[in-house]
Parts: sequence; structure tokens; C-alpha cells
Amino acid sequence: MLNGGSSSGKSGIARCLQELLPDPWLSFGVDTLIMAMPASARTSAAGIEFAPQGEVIVGPQFRSLEAAWIAGLVAMAGAGARIIVDEAFLGGAASQQRWTAALGDLPTLWVGVRCDAEAAAAREIARGDRVPGMAASQAELVHQGIVYDLEVDTTHAEALACARHIAASLR
Amino acid sequence: MLNGGSSSGKSGIARCLQELLPDPWLSFGVDTLIMAMPASARTSAAGIEFAPQGEVIVGPQFRSLEAAWIAGLVAMAGAGARIIVDEAFLGGAASQQRWTAALGDLPTLWVGVRCDAEAAAAREIARGDRVPGMAASQAELVHQGIVYDLEVDTTHAEALACARHIAASLR
Amino acid sequence: MLNGGSSSGKSGIARCLQELLPDPWLSFGVDTLIMAMPASARTSAAGIEFAPQGEVIVGPQFRSLEAAWIAGLVAMAGAGARIIVDEAFLGGAASQQRWTAALGDLPTLWVGVRCDAEAAAAREIARGDRVPGMAASQAELVHQGIVYDLEVDTTHAEALACARHIAASLR
Amino acid sequence: MLNGGSSSGKSGIARCLQELLPDPWLSFGVDTLIMAMPASARTSAAGIEFAPQGEVIVGPQFRSLEAAWIAGLVAMAGAGARIIVDEAFLGGAASQQRWTAALGDLPTLWVGVRCDAEAAAAREIARGDRVPGMAASQAELVHQGIVYDLEVDTTHAEALACARHIAASLR
Repeated sequence: MLNGGSSSGKSGIARCLQELLPDPWLSFGVDTLIMAMPASARTSAAGIEFAPQGEVIVGPQFRSLEAAWIAGLVAMAGAGARIIVDEAFLGGAASQQRWTAALGDLPTLWVGVRCDAEAAAAREIARGDRVPGMAASQAELVHQGIVYDLEVDTTHAEALACARHIAASLR
Repeated sequence: MLNGGSSSGKSGIARCLQELLPDPWLSFGVDTLIMAMPASARTSAAGIEFAPQGEVIVGPQFRSLEAAWIAGLVAMAGAGARIIVDEAFLGGAASQQRWTAALGDLPTLWVGVRCDAEAAAAREIARGDRVPGMAASQAELVHQGIVYDLEVDTTHAEALACARHIAASLR
Repeated sequence: MLNGGSSSGKSGIARCLQELLPDPWLSFGVDTLIMAMPASARTSAAGIEFAPQGEVIVGPQFRSLEAAWIAGLVAMAGAGARIIVDEAFLGGAASQQRWTAALGDLPTLWVGVRCDAEAAAAREIARGDRVPGMAASQAELVHQGIVYDLEVDTTHAEALACARHIAASLR
Repeated sequence: MLNGGSSSGKSGIARCLQELLPDPWLSFGVDTLIMAMPASARTSAAGIEFAPQGEVIVGPQFRSLEAAWIAGLVAMAGAGARIIVDEAFLGGAASQQRWTAALGDLPTLWVGVRCDAEAAAAREIARGDRVPGMAASQAELVHQGIVYDLEVDTTHAEALACARHIAASLR
């Protein structure tokens, strides 16, 4: 479970993990869920919304779909698939709790993906495909109250180096 | 459950259904699974492969990940999410059987999405992002031995019209 | 020169033409120019803007960059490249005039790509990646006052069939 | 003119420059040209090809289209557009010479975008959308025999910091 703010480098770490690990791992993220939602729900008050400063506002409809989504990923893992989840715990400890309750006894490595707000904001500009402000507003927020097995920091390290560190803990 | 060949218009019908149906539906397809796989598995003999004439060759590794994927989508539906699945049953009745076994008692509308091979091949060229030959090779193949509740044909009808027909059966 | 409204099928026809024509043709469109602009200019009053009903509002900054863009494409053609341009003449005869003035003596085939507003609007929903309403608002508008050598209609014909008709006029 | 190997960070620097610079700049790259080519030319011996180790093999057809492309971008600049070009000079001094001959008297800032082969290869894995091996094979190659006004290195610096350095030279 990779948790980090927008533009912290989670997806890059996930792709590197898939190349490093000897078994095939499936990689899913909150972006997979958002892409599966109706186009209208992606931008409605009931679904998910991007405020002018880049904050993400999550409505009740999204929460209900997300609960089913979590149940589904847990079932995939229960059926034997190795799964990387790329998440941004905008709700702090409550976000982690939603997952721990669903995961039950399934072995999980909780990984914090940190990146200084300034570096994440710079990468957001370089990507050019995100709502400006998300990186800075999430950089600290998503880690508040979260308990990790392992933390990596992409501010000065490549995603591949972070992935090597994580992979070593999975053996 | 939308089953049809490559470039038959399944994804377009799925997006139209999401706009037409009053509740929010999640839309997933075999493309979602392929995108979740390691880049190397997408093109290896153990994973999934695109032969020169556009046939898709599916290896044992893919089958095992697909079984977990099916279990996960069924669990999402069991947890209350309404789900559209966009599939290409390359294995005929055995492909459908994998789903019926997993779905159990969950209510499912089986929809065949037909498109003449010539029209599908023309759309494949117009899209420009698919391996040439997939549309023609799958147009008939994916429907062999499949039992449907409903069939639509995109050869002469817009995806939206097909989606209206399907939506009427979901009420 | 392919001129038609949003979701009328211009890009698909362009890709089919590239496959049908024996020589290599380069394909550019107003989307190429928009992608080349700064992210901020794409959504600012000075650049280009998408109004709530899907109308496109084009500012003075965009006009100035577009004039240079047109000069550049004409220079590519003057240097010997065969070029397909995919356009939406939102400004009517004045839009065409901007091109004819720049093209000078270069041989040009003016092609109108028509699609009924209802069919274009249906395809816009099926695509799911356009601002809703653009297709319907542009369907008639972009053809007002334009003079063509040839017209095709994608309402009931595949892009490939339209491209075959156009290709026959290029020999 | 930004010249650097694959995955060295040129596109990110270009997007940052567009945000930093007060006037609107258009950004084009060799990827724009490749996307404009017929799908078949992108992978044919006459066009452009990606060898198993990630080397790029450029055929005569590509060279001829590229000459027209260069003439077109130069004409855009001549018509008053400010242009960022993102290039990979695989042919060394001859590649630069093609541009200098076409540019004539137009003021140009030649910028080398360096990145250590190891870091570029790591980023190529994290991106997951490039032919593996391109980053390492181009890291040194594209700089051989090239004369720059300015060089930046993305190995340990963010694209935004490199862009600030470049922007300071444009004033």
C-alpha cells in the first residue's frame, strides 16, 4: 500500500516495483476508480471535485463506490493476486482505517511515499496534466495520523531506488 | 456484461450507459486489467501477446491474474456497486462460464455487442491505436457459443441508441 | 483541408487517408496547436475557452499564435510535405479566408466533413472526453459560408468510406 | 532549442518554461512530428523504428518529412511565434547543422539537457511508456559534437529549477 500526495511519485514507484519483483503484481490506484466512474460523477458535488486551489472534495456518492472498490481489491488479493495500491489518504487515520477493516488478515506492507511540498509542486508544473495546487496541498496532509511499516522519500531519490528499498522488505 | 470484438463499440456503449442510467455505474474492461499488469507481462509469452495478424494470445500467467480480477469485480458488485463489464470472450463458452461460475446469484444482463467485421475493421483503421487485424479476427469469434439476454448491433446504429436499448432492459 | 464540427469524424478520416494514400502524409489539427500552447493559455480569456454549453471562445492571443501556426503549416507544404489539416471553421468564411490568403498557389482540396447534429452529439457522449455540447453547437456553424471542392457525410458512412471518396479526388 | 536524450526531462522543462515565461510560447518536439506521421510509417524501415535495445533507427522517408517540419517551425518563428523545440540530436553535429542552416538569423538559445544515463534509465522504468533502453543509449550520444549556449542537468535538479535557469537567459 503506497500512500502519498499528488505528484509525490507513487505511480512511478509502482511501475518500478512491477519490474523489480519476480512475480507479476497488479497495480491499481484511486485514478483507476476515478476513470471507472461516470464522466459526470467525476466533476459533480455528489462525486469528486477539484476546488480552485487544488483541494479534492469527495462526496457521499464517491465514498459509497469507494467502499465497494476496496472490497473488490481485497477480494482480488484474497484470490491470490499480488496487488500494489497507490493511494492518497486525504482523510487521515480514517482513510487508513477503511482499508485495515477491509483487509482483515491479509498481509500488507504500509509504505509512506513522502516528497517535500516544494519538489512535488515543481513536478506538478512539469507534468502539466494535474490541477495546480494539489501537490502542495496534499504533501503533508495525506501522512497525518498514518502508521507505516516503511517510508521512502522521493525528494532526492529516484522512484527506482525507492522501489528497490520497498522490494527488499517484501522478500 | 457487454461482450464484443475489438472496435465493435463496447466502450462507447459503456460510457453512454453511464450517462443514461440514473444511478452511478462503474465501468471496467479487460483493458483495465491489462493496464494494471506489469509492462513486461503485457508483451510476454506468459502474459498476453498480440500476434502479427492481430490475434491475441493469452498465456497462463494472464489466466491466473484474470481469475482474481473476476473475483474482485464480483465482490464489488456483491458490495453494492453497479458494474458494467466490457469483455471480449476470445475463449467462447469457456470464457462465459468463467464469469457465470464467479457471479453466482448476482443479477446479470448478458449483452452481445455485434458489429460486421468490415465495419469494425474500418473503425480500427480510423482509431489508429490498435494492432491492425484484431477487429476482423474477433468480430465473429467472440460470439461463438455465447448465450445472451439481449443483442445490439453497432454496424448501423450509434452507441447511444444501443445503450438506450440496453438501459430499457435494466429497469 | 478537412473542415467539420467537433465529433464529426475528421480525425478518423485523416488517419484513414494516411493509410490509404501511397505517399506519407502528415496530419495536423487545431488540437495539435492547442496541445502546443501553455496549459494556462488553454483555459484563459486571452487564449481559448470552453463555455458551459460547449461553445469555444477564442481570444486575441490564440488568434495571433494561430496565424503563425498557419504560416508554419503552409511552409511545410511549400517544402514538399503532403499535409492533412483537420479544422473547425468556427469563424465561417473569415476562417477559410485566413487559410486561402496564407496558402497562395499551393494546391488544396477543400473538404467539408458533415455529420448530423444528433449523431455527432451521440458520438460525443460515447467518446466521453469532450466538453458536452460542442458537437451539437458546431455541427452546422462550421459550414456556414464555406466553399468546398468535395463534401462527405459521416452520419451513415464509416470514416474509411469517406476517406476513400476523398483519396479518389487526390489522384 | 532543448536537446537531450530520451527521459532526460526535456518535456517537463518545456512545460515549466511555458509557465514561467510572461509571453505565450508554443512547445513542439520530435514527438509532435512522430504523432503526425502515418501509423505505418512510425514502425517501418522507411520511417522510424525502435530496435530491441532501444536505439532509434531513422529512415530516408523520416528525414524528408523532418526537413519540411523544420522549415515549418522556422516559418512559425519567423511569423512572430515564440517557440520551444524539444529535440534529441541522434545524428550529432549533423543534426544541429540541419537546424542552424534552416534557422538563419533567427535568435536561438541552444540548451543542452543532460541527465546521467543511470538516472535517465531509472526514469524510463518509472514512466513505463517508452521502449526500454532508449534513455541509456541516448544519454551521451545526443550531446556529441553539439555546441550550446547553456547546459542544465536534471540528474539532481528539478525541471522547474532548470527552467528558471534557462528563462533567466532569455530576458
